[in-house]
Amino acid sequence: MWTLYHHPSHPGSRKVRLALSELNLPCTVELESYWLHRPEFTRLNVASEVPVLLLDEGQSIVGDQAICEFIDEMKPDHSLLGPSLEQRSETRRLLQWFDQKFAREVTDNIIGEKLMKRLTHSGSPMADAIRAGIANIHYHLDYIGWLTERRNWLAGPTYSLADCAAAAHISLIDYLGDVPWADHDDARNWYMKVKSRPSFRPLLSETMAGVTPASHYANLDF
Amino acid sequence: MWTLYHHPSHPGSRKVRLALSELNLPCTVELESYWLHRPEFTRLNVASEVPVLLLDEGQSIVGDQAICEFIDEMKPDHSLLGPSLEQRSETRRLLQWFDQKFAREVTDNIIGEKLMKRLTHSGSPMADAIRAGIANIHYHLDYIGWLTERRNWLAGPTYSLADCAAAAHISLIDYLGDVPWADHDDARNWYMKVKSRPSFRPLLSETMAGVTPASHYANLDF
Repeated sequence: MWTLYHHPSHPGSRKVRLALSELNLPCTVELESYWLHRPEFTRLNVASEVPVLLLDEGQSIVGDQAICEFIDEMKPDHSLLGPSLEQRSETRRLLQWFDQKFAREVTDNIIGEKLMKRLTHSGSPMADAIRAGIANIHYHLDYIGWLTERRNWLAGPTYSLADCAAAAHISLIDYLGDVPWADHDDARNWYMKVKSRPSFRPLLSETMAGVTPASHYANLDF
Repeated sequence: MWTLYHHPSHPGSRKVRLALSELNLPCTVELESYWLHRPEFTRLNVASEVPVLLLDEGQSIVGDQAICEFIDEMKPDHSLLGPSLEQRSETRRLLQWFDQKFAREVTDNIIGEKLMKRLTHSGSPMADAIRAGIANIHYHLDYIGWLTERRNWLAGPTYSLADCAAAAHISLIDYLGDVPWADHDDARNWYMKVKSRPSFRPLLSETMAGVTPASHYANLDF
């Protein structure tokens, strides 16, 4: 059985867990507090970052991009990127949107300040950054609404890795109760669909030590 | 002919230009000051970020990740990711290293402060950030030296997209004269090899308005 080193505070870890589950690739998950630079873990990844996927033959696949492309190449008939070159480019455009633009404008500000500083004992949260993250999220939720109104899912007619990536970031922010759902019906409808998929259940049942999730976090109807 | 919208201040644009040239995929380049949000450009990419590759049939491929994977899928026999799943995972691990870790620890600090703030007229450079970038680069140059001492190129025996990514970031910092080559012979030897490839020439001959490159920037022997 494969082993995934992950942390629930890390969007890339969440994305990979969703993708593995959607592709029916079973694996054991190991919680890794990667900021502690555990020597056995840094031997798997010198950058000491999650996620890392350890294969049966001892080979490791390092980083969420490498893991997602690896499992996609292994299962071309069930690709989460899409069937055509055009569709795959659109999925990858949105992967970069969520994993870089959304991360920089929203996740780093909210999760970096409110959650990671607590977990890693690295200073007080900066109120200005949190405010910026909370202001920026509206534009992204509007964009999710705009996309899903025109398509069935974010990147096109079927569920894709773009949905995994967006849901990874948003579920983390929702853990802290900071997603303004009341103002964004379309995005909320998309998230209800994502959340009710079997791949999402393990994420919703998991809590982080010392940080209580928002009361609606695990509810499929919120 | 394809058209690439790019900016020389942007590492992802540089990486894509190197990759296109290495794969003998000719294209016209269009300089795009993406921070100005030109309406014709935001119609191609709503995020108003470079690079964007416009294909003959009017379809656009948006973002450096999507473009690199797209041209790799088009030219599987000359893949810059590598021939095996294992090799491709190693190349993608290093892509994430340079495009995210190196970007965050070095490029954003040096290029973001010294170059982008000047180009976009957005305030004064923060000396602390520049100092951090200049301190952090040593560790990355050591890692380049460590890798290339064991392999021929960064990700393995042949030139790969990992070399394009690393060279994209480093060439930008070298434009400002901030790479401490004197302390890093192995990294310098690797960069001399990269720099002498025909794919690199267009980058070296190009200057940015109002910002003079370091005197050694275009020299193959530095």
